[in-house]
Amino acid sequence: MQRWKTAAIIGVGLIGGSIGLALRKRGLADAVIGIGRRQAGLDKALGLGAVTSAAINLEEGVRDADLVVVCTPVDQIAGHVLQVASVVSDHALLTDAGSTKASIVAKVEATLPKGKRFVGSHPLAGSEKNGVEFARADLFTGRIVVLTPSAHSAPKDICAATEFWRSLEAEVISMPPDVHDHVLATTSHLPHLVACAVAQITPNSELQLTAGGWRDLTRIASGEPDLWLPILLDNRLNILNSLARFEKTMAEFRAALDKADPAKLRQLLTEGKLCRDAVGN
Amino acid sequence: MQRWKTAAIIGVGLIGGSIGLALRKRGLADAVIGIGRRQAGLDKALGLGAVTSAAINLEEGVRDADLVVVCTPVDQIAGHVLQVASVVSDHALLTDAGSTKASIVAKVEATLPKGKRFVGSHPLAGSEKNGVEFARADLFTGRIVVLTPSAHSAPKDICAATEFWRSLEAEVISMPPDVHDHVLATTSHLPHLVACAVAQITPNSELQLTAGGWRDLTRIASGEPDLWLPILLDNRLNILNSLARFEKTMAEFRAALDKADPAKLRQLLTEGKLCRDAVGN
Repeated sequence: MQRWKTAAIIGVGLIGGSIGLALRKRGLADAVIGIGRRQAGLDKALGLGAVTSAAINLEEGVRDADLVVVCTPVDQIAGHVLQVASVVSDHALLTDAGSTKASIVAKVEATLPKGKRFVGSHPLAGSEKNGVEFARADLFTGRIVVLTPSAHSAPKDICAATEFWRSLEAEVISMPPDVHDHVLATTSHLPHLVACAVAQITPNSELQLTAGGWRDLTRIASGEPDLWLPILLDNRLNILNSLARFEKTMAEFRAALDKADPAKLRQLLTEGKLCRDAVGN
Repeated sequence: MQRWKTAAIIGVGLIGGSIGLALRKRGLADAVIGIGRRQAGLDKALGLGAVTSAAINLEEGVRDADLVVVCTPVDQIAGHVLQVASVVSDHALLTDAGSTKASIVAKVEATLPKGKRFVGSHPLAGSEKNGVEFARADLFTGRIVVLTPSAHSAPKDICAATEFWRSLEAEVISMPPDVHDHVLATTSHLPHLVACAVAQITPNSELQLTAGGWRDLTRIASGEPDLWLPILLDNRLNILNSLARFEKTMAEFRAALDKADPAKLRQLLTEGKLCRDAVGN
């Protein structure tokens, strides 16, 4: 099992805090430095044992790290990775936890100093709950982490990033950054819009008559707009494509309801059930 | 606490089976007769202790009942209630568990023999899991049951139906049948279509990259088409109205993504979050 002398986590919320807890619980890092903009958040992370020390200044915080995980909102990740790369030693492994990958990987690779080791990653372990108070040492257990190496990624760095996430008990798969963004538009980003829309069209006076179905469907709408806005903007072209497919299916539902067409409605219900049943709980 | 000599349950699936288990666990009925079309299903209900005896013939099954709960698909409920009403004694209380109410209540009241006691109801306790094997004695605990009395309902019958559901630990509220259907179109029926559509547009090859959000959102798509089809057909005008509101919000998302408009996207995300946060888990 890969061990680290000093792991640095930039952005200690749900994901960053869980990485810290997971590293510490398994004894995988001697020190875990949490880096954030607000002392209050860092104090919380320290109190929860997610990090062993904290820093507001990014360069100072990461200087001695041999592992750096950037867990900030997606529009800040590339900048943070490059800032890190300018101060860490060549042996340090750099990765991130962003929900979009193509633009981050492209921006980082455009100016990453030669010899620095970066491999993009995305743990599919988010939640509508944000903040280090929801962090869990087992957040990644059994969850998928997508690595998005590029043509420039060194095989040994891909292996190191794979081992890192495996050491947190995640299952690691790999795909090009643009394929990742294309798929996640359908499996994560469009569903977020849909959940928001269903929540929003439900009048307050009718909320009492929501049951498990509505609550499950809309749960992700509670996600933090500050995190979701940059995701939507970054991946908007893929999301627009997914949305077009969604609109087409909803239009079929509309036409079938308009015509009171039982055969077509049954077909649509059955196709939805078959797709969903293929996944299980 | 109201007690029953003989409760009859027509349609012993998730809801009917749970009513049986709940009555028996609390000692609220001396006998619980399960009535269904297939002996195999009834044998399962008997084996699970959801009913104490079983009948294929509806008239024979309900003849001695002082409580009859009709838990069949919504397009069959009115017919079953009227069939029951033709054989039970005047003191028997009749209710149902249908997810739509206006047409059921109207059809029943149009020809209900004078002196028979029917009050429509809808326990908001469904699930994507169907079948008596998922029935639970505590399915209704803390859940909402909507009673839909009409101008013809006798106050004492409304009270009896209220007490019945309260005895299963549900919280009972009351509203006119058409109001119920209008609200449920938004809080339950439209979400079902949306879940089916999101499930359906996700290619099989991308299912590996679904996480908690997608799974929660699409869970209800696993519901049984045989149960959902009659609901959609019965309430289609209300659902079309809800769908129009949903389409309008999705069109706002589309326009904001098209223009890469952060202010509008933030507003839509924030409104969705506020609505969802108002409900809690």
